[in-house]
Amino acid sequence: MAHIQLPEGFPGIAGLMAYSPETAKPLNALVQVLLQDANTLSPGERELIATYVSSQNDCYYCQTIHGAVAARHLDGNQQLVNEVKQNFLSTDLSDKMKALLGIAGKVQQGGKYVQTEDIERARSAGATDQEIHDTVLIAAAFCMYNRYVDGLATWAPQDQAIYQERAKNITEKGYGRFPNNYAVKQEVSVAADATL
Amino acid sequence: MAHIQLPEGFPGIAGLMAYSPETAKPLNALVQVLLQDANTLSPGERELIATYVSSQNDCYYCQTIHGAVAARHLDGNQQLVNEVKQNFLSTDLSDKMKALLGIAGKVQQGGKYVQTEDIERARSAGATDQEIHDTVLIAAAFCMYNRYVDGLATWAPQDQAIYQERAKNITEKGYGRFPNNYAVKQEVSVAADATL
Repeated sequence: MAHIQLPEGFPGIAGLMAYSPETAKPLNALVQVLLQDANTLSPGERELIATYVSSQNDCYYCQTIHGAVAARHLDGNQQLVNEVKQNFLSTDLSDKMKALLGIAGKVQQGGKYVQTEDIERARSAGATDQEIHDTVLIAAAFCMYNRYVDGLATWAPQDQAIYQERAKNITEKGYGRFPNNYAVKQEVSVAADATL
Repeated sequence: MAHIQLPEGFPGIAGLMAYSPETAKPLNALVQVLLQDANTLSPGERELIATYVSSQNDCYYCQTIHGAVAARHLDGNQQLVNEVKQNFLSTDLSDKMKALLGIAGKVQQGGKYVQTEDIERARSAGATDQEIHDTVLIAAAFCMYNRYVDGLATWAPQDQAIYQERAKNITEKGYGRFPNNYAVKQEVSVAADATL
């Protein structure tokens, strides 16, 4: 049971966004620009970074929904998503992505864990400053989303079909841009169209 | 030196916001609603939570600027700010604020560190669900801002006058709403009016 009284029927961060529309707005805007808007890193690559950090933070809801979104972007390759969470160095991802995931893992531990050699490894594998910036901010942002979701003990369904349907909506319509189909209380604000 | 090439002359997150206006917008919107917009927790109380979490994350820039903003809201009581960072339980803050700072400290460690008894302590000291929610999200958000600032090794000036002037602007005008007076390059986008 969540630590505070939330609207019923919303999983994970969706219940928090239904509860607090004022904060939902910038939180959705941030994840949309970080993960879906135009970028030289593909949405699938960025969702993998989000999934990996959420996994390192042991946030079941976030790693499952973003893992499902990542897989949709990556031709349904859920196995790659699982491998990234377990040991991204053993995957066949590019050296650039491995270096960026390495930076993300350092950020998850704390900002000061990122060392010059981590940056140099990414740069020599072809990462641009913008890609390094975006990787650090995605990792940092998921240290927020994960803590928000787990710090208030929100509901994380075990039914994978819920994540699959939600992932479909996110990939097709974007974050914060579709009616929340988990609402069981019709009076819940329209700002509850939370989508993480 | 920062890990990526940033516009010169901006301290801390301001340089990152000048570099990336697309992400600056939701980041500024979020901190404005969390720390300055109407709330039953005063701006001074919320800035104390932000300062404490930034201190626990060892982020010099964030704990110094938000500490300076907190002090301005608290009749210039910088000593209280310092005491909160060192041991908030020994301050003469209310039991409610101590319980909320306790929750913030748990969130800083990780979302799952927050226990039912932490919530019950806050609630029995008078905290509302909304205040508990906001405390968790402020703490989570600063785990993001701190990692963004330190993960890219941004410039943290030692000159306290810089923080004082910036704090004055923030308290008077809000986050993201004043021209950035550290810009040395005039061509920097207006979206660089970053304010954390």
